Amino acid sequence: MRLKKYTDFALRVLILTGSKEEGELASIKEISETFFISTEHIRKVVHQLSKLELIHTVRGRNGGIILAKGPSEINIGQVVRWMENDFSILECFNKDTNQCVITPSCKLKHVISKALAAFFQILDDYTLEDVLENKDELKELMSMT
Amino acid sequence: MRLKKYTDFALRVLILTGSKEEGELASIKEISETFFISTEHIRKVVHQLSKLELIHTVRGRNGGIILAKGPSEINIGQVVRWMENDFSILECFNKDTNQCVITPSCKLKHVISKALAAFFQILDDYTLEDVLENKDELKELMSMT
Repeated sequence: MRLKKYTDFALRVLILTGSKEEGELASIKEISETFFISTEHIRKVVHQLSKLELIHTVRGRNGGIILAKGPSEINIGQVVRWMENDFSILECFNKDTNQCVITPSCKLKHVISKALAAFFQILDDYTLEDVLENKDELKELMSMT
Repeated sequence: MRLKKYTDFALRVLILTGSKEEGELASIKEISETFFISTEHIRKVVHQLSKLELIHTVRGRNGGIILAKGPSEINIGQVVRWMENDFSILECFNKDTNQCVITPSCKLKHVISKALAAFFQILDDYTLEDVLENKDELKELMSMT
């Protein structure tokens, strides 16, 4: 069971960007170097987070990335839902490609749906602010690379 | 967010095998044709389910597959855990390959662990017997292919 790599990367972009002091910008290069993730991947994730209005990108020589809203307004469950986007946890969850003949009467689909709802119910209880509660510790770890 | 294909296939093998009348055997060919899944995939899944002591394979001309225990003793959460086997839902969940620098202080890992536990808590509430509650409907659908 996995989340997409891009979901993982997106959460890290938000953590690093959210750990900055007010007005301080993060950069793609910095995020890439901190987490050993290619700038290409980070660029794509930043683009997507920007489209989701979670971050603003500031252009120019002193440009960079900044959160578009307060950490308490960025819900972890919502970020994961947006980034995952495809919830074909089993074949039958994708109507377009599903070939499973028992789908109309299958109780398993409901069990898995219920479990998925429980998963998100937990994530929905947390915001980026909760994840950044120990910001200073995180900043120290991020400054080591 | 996805479960492995093999987990999906394993659940279907258990459903079809569990829908048989007492003493009646399922076959790899039948499962493959019912679900449009290659016999090669089904063979691998059957081998794994057999190692997990969830099914017995009966050799010979009239051989086939039969559940190794009653459907009420086959827990869905347990089957999914066994089949998934790798729970690297995020990079930090795999100690061997994790490179994420903030791991020692990251609260997100705990949030995701809690969500994963909630997911399995639901699955643990169900057995194959619950999924086979409407066995006759399922059998009808499976006999159509």
